[in-house]
Amino acid sequence: MIVDKLTLYIGNKNYSSWSFRPWLALEGCGIPFEEVLIPFDFPGGNPRIREVSPTGKVPMLVHGGFKVWESFAIIEYAAELFPDAGLLPRDRQARALARSYSMEMISGFSALRNSCPMNMRRPIARRELPDAVTTDVERIETIWREARAVSGGPFLFGSFSGADAMFAPVVSRLERYDIAVAADTRDYMAVMKALPAWQKWEEAALQETWTVPEDED
Amino acid sequence: MIVDKLTLYIGNKNYSSWSFRPWLALEGCGIPFEEVLIPFDFPGGNPRIREVSPTGKVPMLVHGGFKVWESFAIIEYAAELFPDAGLLPRDRQARALARSYSMEMISGFSALRNSCPMNMRRPIARRELPDAVTTDVERIETIWREARAVSGGPFLFGSFSGADAMFAPVVSRLERYDIAVAADTRDYMAVMKALPAWQKWEEAALQETWTVPEDED
Repeated sequence: MIVDKLTLYIGNKNYSSWSFRPWLALEGCGIPFEEVLIPFDFPGGNPRIREVSPTGKVPMLVHGGFKVWESFAIIEYAAELFPDAGLLPRDRQARALARSYSMEMISGFSALRNSCPMNMRRPIARRELPDAVTTDVERIETIWREARAVSGGPFLFGSFSGADAMFAPVVSRLERYDIAVAADTRDYMAVMKALPAWQKWEEAALQETWTVPEDED
Repeated sequence: MIVDKLTLYIGNKNYSSWSFRPWLALEGCGIPFEEVLIPFDFPGGNPRIREVSPTGKVPMLVHGGFKVWESFAIIEYAAELFPDAGLLPRDRQARALARSYSMEMISGFSALRNSCPMNMRRPIARRELPDAVTTDVERIETIWREARAVSGGPFLFGSFSGADAMFAPVVSRLERYDIAVAADTRDYMAVMKALPAWQKWEEAALQETWTVPEDED
């Protein structure tokens, strides 16, 4: 199927957890797309984002003039354009669970997200975290354990899918903030970090020089 | 198509905005389902919810033993089971926008959600609200205006869909907290409140006697 070019607008790779999700999903599933990075190194964001995005936020996918935003909505749209790319599980029940888990990620885990901003350059080190972070991490570990038990792993639904991508920034957070997790969680983190797409993003993140003070310790 | 019975677990109709969304979507699209109401009138919730829900939260859809949760994931699952019911727009781009808007609702508008808990019994009256609520309301009005301009209305995507249901609790909040909105917003609110499914939910909400103090003024 020939389609118009897809362009994904993203923020800084080091910090933009919401950009990382659809980028990793598309790249990891072999979807051809062009990336446009709009750094938000200005206080209050970058006015260029307003020019492309109705919400003033990234990520934003542009497809022949049509705009889709919100990380998981981008994944759903790409899954419709490329139904064989594996962005969503093929089995109906697995696909439903991929959506339930992904929407838990979208709507929740605010303690972990607020206390541990994604920062791929952060030296690995523990710091004092509120109890609510532990509750969030326990639920995330349960999700990963249950999904991989049903599918047999190594990814949440067998092979890599958009649901894994939705949790990718959590993998980075658990690593960089050295949060205590179970052995099977470590296994899953290793599987995610071994993805060529992960490594491509992370290498670029490490080379960025923009600093966002509120996301630093 | 014959399918196993669908059972939707919900919270109190007066307060449970997240339950209202999939309930209204299913009821408004004519999907047959059984409803089980678990009131959360205990401090910290109701232990019965834990028995049925992996997340300890409602809404939860059970279909022949299979569980789906998160309001919009429930709508997506029902849309796959009943593809002709109109739960999602038929046009690909409209469907993508329905998801972008719905996921904005899931992930955002926290000022409005926190300052104005859904409370269908609340006497209509203004109260002092933070500026962030105004920002949220302006974005919501823009979404409704743009979607209805493209579709021609009266609902966001022409006829009633799950995207309208995702914004239903906002309609109730704008009404009960008497928030100043544009004339076209008032029109959309009237269209939503005229839905037989809306009226069925609201009548039941008004008859409930449970009181959740943190959701009252």
